[in-house]
Amino acid sequence: MTTPHPQARGLNLAQAAGLIDALRAALGPTAVLAGADAPVRNHNDCSGLPPAPPLAVVRPADTAGVATTLRLCSQHGVAVVPQGGLTGLCGAARTAGGEIALSLERLVGIEEIDAAAATMTVRAGTPLEAVQQAASEAGFFCPLDLGARGSCSIGGNLATNAGGNRVIRYGMAREMVLGLEVVLPDGTVITSLNKMIKNNAGFDLKHLFIGSEGTLGVITRVVLRLSPKPASTQVALCAVHSYADVLTLLASARQHLGPQLSAFEVMWPEFWRFANTHAPRARNPFADDPTAYGAHVLVEALGTDEAQDAERFQAWLGQLLEDGVVPNAALAQSLADAKAFWALRDASGEFHPLWPGHLAYDVGLPVARMEDYVIRCRAALAEAYPGIDSFFYGHIGDGNLHIIAHLPGAPQQPKDGVNAIVYGLVREFGGTVSAEHGIGTLKREWLGHARSPEEIGLMRLLKNAIDPQGLLNPGKVL
Amino acid sequence: MTTPHPQARGLNLAQAAGLIDALRAALGPTAVLAGADAPVRNHNDCSGLPPAPPLAVVRPADTAGVATTLRLCSQHGVAVVPQGGLTGLCGAARTAGGEIALSLERLVGIEEIDAAAATMTVRAGTPLEAVQQAASEAGFFCPLDLGARGSCSIGGNLATNAGGNRVIRYGMAREMVLGLEVVLPDGTVITSLNKMIKNNAGFDLKHLFIGSEGTLGVITRVVLRLSPKPASTQVALCAVHSYADVLTLLASARQHLGPQLSAFEVMWPEFWRFANTHAPRARNPFADDPTAYGAHVLVEALGTDEAQDAERFQAWLGQLLEDGVVPNAALAQSLADAKAFWALRDASGEFHPLWPGHLAYDVGLPVARMEDYVIRCRAALAEAYPGIDSFFYGHIGDGNLHIIAHLPGAPQQPKDGVNAIVYGLVREFGGTVSAEHGIGTLKREWLGHARSPEEIGLMRLLKNAIDPQGLLNPGKVL
Repeated sequence: MTTPHPQARGLNLAQAAGLIDALRAALGPTAVLAGADAPVRNHNDCSGLPPAPPLAVVRPADTAGVATTLRLCSQHGVAVVPQGGLTGLCGAARTAGGEIALSLERLVGIEEIDAAAATMTVRAGTPLEAVQQAASEAGFFCPLDLGARGSCSIGGNLATNAGGNRVIRYGMAREMVLGLEVVLPDGTVITSLNKMIKNNAGFDLKHLFIGSEGTLGVITRVVLRLSPKPASTQVALCAVHSYADVLTLLASARQHLGPQLSAFEVMWPEFWRFANTHAPRARNPFADDPTAYGAHVLVEALGTDEAQDAERFQAWLGQLLEDGVVPNAALAQSLADAKAFWALRDASGEFHPLWPGHLAYDVGLPVARMEDYVIRCRAALAEAYPGIDSFFYGHIGDGNLHIIAHLPGAPQQPKDGVNAIVYGLVREFGGTVSAEHGIGTLKREWLGHARSPEEIGLMRLLKNAIDPQGLLNPGKVL
Repeated sequence: MTTPHPQARGLNLAQAAGLIDALRAALGPTAVLAGADAPVRNHNDCSGLPPAPPLAVVRPADTAGVATTLRLCSQHGVAVVPQGGLTGLCGAARTAGGEIALSLERLVGIEEIDAAAATMTVRAGTPLEAVQQAASEAGFFCPLDLGARGSCSIGGNLATNAGGNRVIRYGMAREMVLGLEVVLPDGTVITSLNKMIKNNAGFDLKHLFIGSEGTLGVITRVVLRLSPKPASTQVALCAVHSYADVLTLLASARQHLGPQLSAFEVMWPEFWRFANTHAPRARNPFADDPTAYGAHVLVEALGTDEAQDAERFQAWLGQLLEDGVVPNAALAQSLADAKAFWALRDASGEFHPLWPGHLAYDVGLPVARMEDYVIRCRAALAEAYPGIDSFFYGHIGDGNLHIIAHLPGAPQQPKDGVNAIVYGLVREFGGTVSAEHGIGTLKREWLGHARSPEEIGLMRLLKNAIDPQGLLNPGKVL
């Protein structure tokens, strides 16, 4: 037995010890790691904020254990921070110090794959990659995918409503969910493991919890809708002169590739130059000077018949070349080509090793206004911080723009000033401060740049109704 | 000036007159039709319940007018029933007598079509057909479609989360919504007209209101996500021996047609016989005895290239015939064929003229268990009501089964008894009492057959938080 951490909010040591004892009595001693026994990994997520130790890490093995944990914490008035794979970028799973960290890491495993319904029932702590593999082994496809797939958990993916590269075709994580089991702050278990695509019996409760970043309830089990396995992949890199041509290309891709269009990734010139210089395994398929075009676009389509799909994709691209919309294009002729093209887009992974303190943004903007935003943002950053590097790229078909900023040689990056420029323009353009990473603690002060006082007021009303003590993931989102 | 209707709940005539006067002063006299001036059409929806006159019909022309109406009703403590096209089947838009009917009929028109974002911003009272036409004229497709398209309103479609025939491909109505403007019971306007596919800034508020049947807020404006226009349609009718073969056919359609699969409609033998006898314009493409098969399935695919898609569809169907999964199939060779095939499925429209008092159900079931349900339900109905006709058909790919029951010669159909059999088995099979029509008042007593006490408790908690006076659409859903 170790002593509980003394930072417990507003609790004296005796009270904290009382909660720890109660948790141990209910869940067994191995499920409760208090004080110095709390693993260091549970002190933080991937937000880059300083670590902070929880009062204890509690690791229930089932839904009943999660409910017991929440009920006891509620009775003792101690705050709880739900934790999945701890890969979140905005601090939603980080303890502020002194809370109970409720880790879902033991709540793992696929409970059922229903082939007729094309659904999977899975426990929340299961890593995304295990979900993908199980779907694949059963002859299905789980389209949700992101870089952290090996360590992020499906519950965490849903708590943040994860996005990724294929949202244009398959939607955000929430669109893959048919049913959910959630434990409320007082320990009430809401088991809503619906497997039907159509169910209009009363309010839709699942969408309230998906994307609420663990502030309204703790997701314990999920019913996912599985997709058929794609049988073909077509990838092309297109060089275009202007953003107007990007939009023409997007409209054409939507029309001609239809529901097969699975990625539409735009890279502005600074990013394209960076990718060609720094991306390992990438190769520029164009002989041109990398500054010769206004933008480069990676287009991907997932189909059902390799021969027919390849023919159709090629004919579509040929027409665009002939029409002059796309002055230069390269079609992947092999899996190796496709990987090399994606490696250019995935050069975004090289910013961190090169400039560990760089500033990264995940904004959303109306598609039609994105180029104006990039021009204004680039100019404002250059004016405020001469010599600053800025890079723009993203999932433009979904309205999602990523921005990287880095001021070479600065002992500390001008975070507050760049935030104000990036998010100030987002507000002006009617965009969002988070397209896919969430709000957590890092973007909390900017939420009002994307949502109105009335919207935030309604969020608070819902939070207060479901968590009147304010004990579940306090200080996050709102 | 006419006298307000005396049924105003708990109000005396002077109080009711005070509210009417306040509404007239704020909105203008033509926006408020009280007492005998209230149009008869606003006394009911399509639920088949007896009509009941409202205290007054209020018809604001904009969001501010809706907000004013709700604020004044809240201040006077008078209940409000939101009304769209009045085509709902479960009584959600019907006044119980004495409430204010808040009609959205003047809040019409398309505000914007954003071609780059592929979105439409539209006012809630706009008929669905006008939305479909405007999308089409702008080169897009609005996939939401149902029989009442000419008179139902888009706001009503979202309030009930409408389904329809193409859910298997495009999802329910909620999946076509990117943004929403809603007025809360106290008159607060929540303008959340997001146009971005990815927006993770705080809780998702829109899904709480979509499908809540006007009990949490009044939808005033909507941002819809538009789809590309399909360029080809393939339709086939397949006769199969068993439900196991229906499931094999469904799995094969999902895999080979991929995202083009747009309808998978199954007709059990009683329905097939009825359709062949009663559907006008339908023709049975099979020479066989209509009782020779276990089920008939209409499969539709919407594609992007007529020639290629037809070839692929035909090859797929040919393989299924060769494999013996589908012993008999007919491929539509023309638009006329396709219409004739659909006319068999749409024979469901003939029940009403033939047997006006027939009992109709809209349940959902896990796909794998549907045949067992049909066998049990058919037998239980026949045992309880010898001679009863029962018909089973539906959107099986979505888990949605429609049931029609009719006892020939009965002076009154045995509604309570049939309800108990149909919904009792739904509970036993883990299904839902409403796949697409909603709960309204008609299915309120059966909600507990599809949702747990904890789920219903959470719905009540949300209702009380947002509408503490209980004045918005009281007695509906919960």
